[in-house]
Amino acid sequence: MTAITLINSFDISVGLEQLFLQCWKQVNAYLQKKPGYLGHKLHRAITPDAPFRFVNIARWSSIAHFEAAHDAGFRELVDQPAWSAFQPNPNLYEVVHVAGGDWHETVDSR
Amino acid sequence: MTAITLINSFDISVGLEQLFLQCWKQVNAYLQKKPGYLGHKLHRAITPDAPFRFVNIARWSSIAHFEAAHDAGFRELVDQPAWSAFQPNPNLYEVVHVAGGDWHETVDSR
Repeated sequence: MTAITLINSFDISVGLEQLFLQCWKQVNAYLQKKPGYLGHKLHRAITPDAPFRFVNIARWSSIAHFEAAHDAGFRELVDQPAWSAFQPNPNLYEVVHVAGGDWHETVDSR
Repeated sequence: MTAITLINSFDISVGLEQLFLQCWKQVNAYLQKKPGYLGHKLHRAITPDAPFRFVNIARWSSIAHFEAAHDAGFRELVDQPAWSAFQPNPNLYEVVHVAGGDWHETVDSR
């Protein structure tokens, strides 16, 4: 099995940032408990003209784990009315070149 | 100073993958030597329908370091004819939520 990377970009208007974060954390907490979940970093754009305000980079043990995690419980969460304003753009990637080692973050993970 | 994350997406057609990688590594080798460069992961799409074939996630010590590194030497490299086929989409981000710790890669970094 090869670990894979999800890059999920969200085009969120500034006024909806807090609602998005609230909804996203709920879904993320659900997915974190699934087998094969390795971790994530959620990014917020610094520049106001970035086409995607939020980008989540998440790591899964395999495509099979990733697909199995997006089950009926997941769909129930993202089918809530609040989520309809947040169009995800999920794509799966493999890492082909790396340097500089890993970096550590000191941000909220709750 | 706050470390920042560059997310740079490239829409590369399949036939140009090897040329892109060759050019990208040349530019990346130049930037790696600059002050404030912390590291990167270059991602290649697994799914054929991903809108961006390659996504580079790079980390810099600060916006000032990032901007200073993109100097005349950098522009000389990306002004080469081969680069004209590779439109970058660079945006700067901060990490706002993280879990699962860092993950290690075992891919080529030359």
